[in-house]
Amino acid sequence: MSSLPAEPVRAPAPLAAVRSGVPEHGEPPKYFQVKQKIDAVLEELGPGATLPTERQFADRFGVSRMTVRQAIRELRLEGRVQRSGRSTVAGRPKLVQPLTLASYTEGVRSQGRRPGRELIILERLPADAALATGLRIELGAPVFHLERLLLADEERVGLESTYLSAARFPTLIDEFDPSTSLYAYLRGTGVVLADADERIETVLGSPREVQLIGTTPALPMLLLSRVTRDRQGEPVECVRSLYRGDRFSFTAHLTAEED
Amino acid sequence: MSSLPAEPVRAPAPLAAVRSGVPEHGEPPKYFQVKQKIDAVLEELGPGATLPTERQFADRFGVSRMTVRQAIRELRLEGRVQRSGRSTVAGRPKLVQPLTLASYTEGVRSQGRRPGRELIILERLPADAALATGLRIELGAPVFHLERLLLADEERVGLESTYLSAARFPTLIDEFDPSTSLYAYLRGTGVVLADADERIETVLGSPREVQLIGTTPALPMLLLSRVTRDRQGEPVECVRSLYRGDRFSFTAHLTAEED
Repeated sequence: MSSLPAEPVRAPAPLAAVRSGVPEHGEPPKYFQVKQKIDAVLEELGPGATLPTERQFADRFGVSRMTVRQAIRELRLEGRVQRSGRSTVAGRPKLVQPLTLASYTEGVRSQGRRPGRELIILERLPADAALATGLRIELGAPVFHLERLLLADEERVGLESTYLSAARFPTLIDEFDPSTSLYAYLRGTGVVLADADERIETVLGSPREVQLIGTTPALPMLLLSRVTRDRQGEPVECVRSLYRGDRFSFTAHLTAEED
Repeated sequence: MSSLPAEPVRAPAPLAAVRSGVPEHGEPPKYFQVKQKIDAVLEELGPGATLPTERQFADRFGVSRMTVRQAIRELRLEGRVQRSGRSTVAGRPKLVQPLTLASYTEGVRSQGRRPGRELIILERLPADAALATGLRIELGAPVFHLERLLLADEERVGLESTYLSAARFPTLIDEFDPSTSLYAYLRGTGVVLADADERIETVLGSPREVQLIGTTPALPMLLLSRVTRDRQGEPVECVRSLYRGDRFSFTAHLTAEED
């Protein structure tokens, strides 16, 4: 795995919606017009700058505070603005994480951010049907579950659950230091990670997840589900990773298969 | 591109949230408990089955209709249930689209669904800064913009805007039939697509996009931004594809780079 350099991020910038999102027939809703105006203000202000208050925006654009609030709510769900104490500030660009076998740590570090993980749970539990299938073990066979909060520059940005066969990694619960890299530990046991299938979709967090990550249930999350295999094709881990949709994007480099 | 078979879908099934989403300290909110109960009902009913009414659920679980409504709203945003006329039905599994250079058409077909595209716009416009950078052309140089609605079994599931240099493909607007495959047309002009950088994130649709796709502004969408290059490394197209987050997931097959 040390042969896996963090890929250079060459993500295309998202293009603007056609015709600034104005419906073919009729006016865009008032809140959306306000959202576009605030978006232009954000461009000028730059990341981290404090926004005018709802009342100030309402006065400036001649609309109600409710209309401003709806616009800012959407901008917050998309990461364009963030709460900071009692005020609202212009958001930073989303983190751009390559979809590779490299770890979260390497991906975040390659963007000049400081990655971190915080242990929530390290436990032993019996495999349910999904884990038994994923890890190719018997139903009820013992599994280690490692749940960690993902941090970037101290900010909580995601929650990751990793499941491994306890029979295959019997010393994990005693020997692995959860504040360090799991992949480094696995390498130490002689495992070579060779390939993975990953699924990516958008979901809403559960109340527990939302509480741990410190966000709201309305915030769309990106859910990554991964099975990683070794060189023999045996599953090594099943992973459920939940990332804040307002703070993360993912990139893939696609190549044509040659004849 | 005919050398690109649709990849077999080997997406891992998403794992359930730990502890059924129950916060470490305290009870989960009532609506979430109801959501989990309705989720269990959905498992029994199977895709397409009509759900009991809000009132029936409220009576059965001893909660208010508002609580049931909140639970069903979240299930709808996640694609677990769908509206069908005036009733609510259990949703079908999400489409699982591989992230490859293969087209939308091939991906949907490989899942036994009938893909379709419907032309919204085919127009010529001057490149803005993002397109000029993406396509490596002059600011203001002419660009063809092709916007199409993406269908699966007649259902509207996404909206795709493709931008190409008009100087490079001068006959496109006259010769390309927008109901057919753009990639097939490009192959006909001698272009060999070699690689692409793709970015994937979650966003909210604009009012226009939401109207065209037939959904609501609250529904999280998956936005894919792509630049595709030919064998010489020249950009061929910039693409903005918006997919319904309740109907789509994407998969990637990741491999370790060998030493």
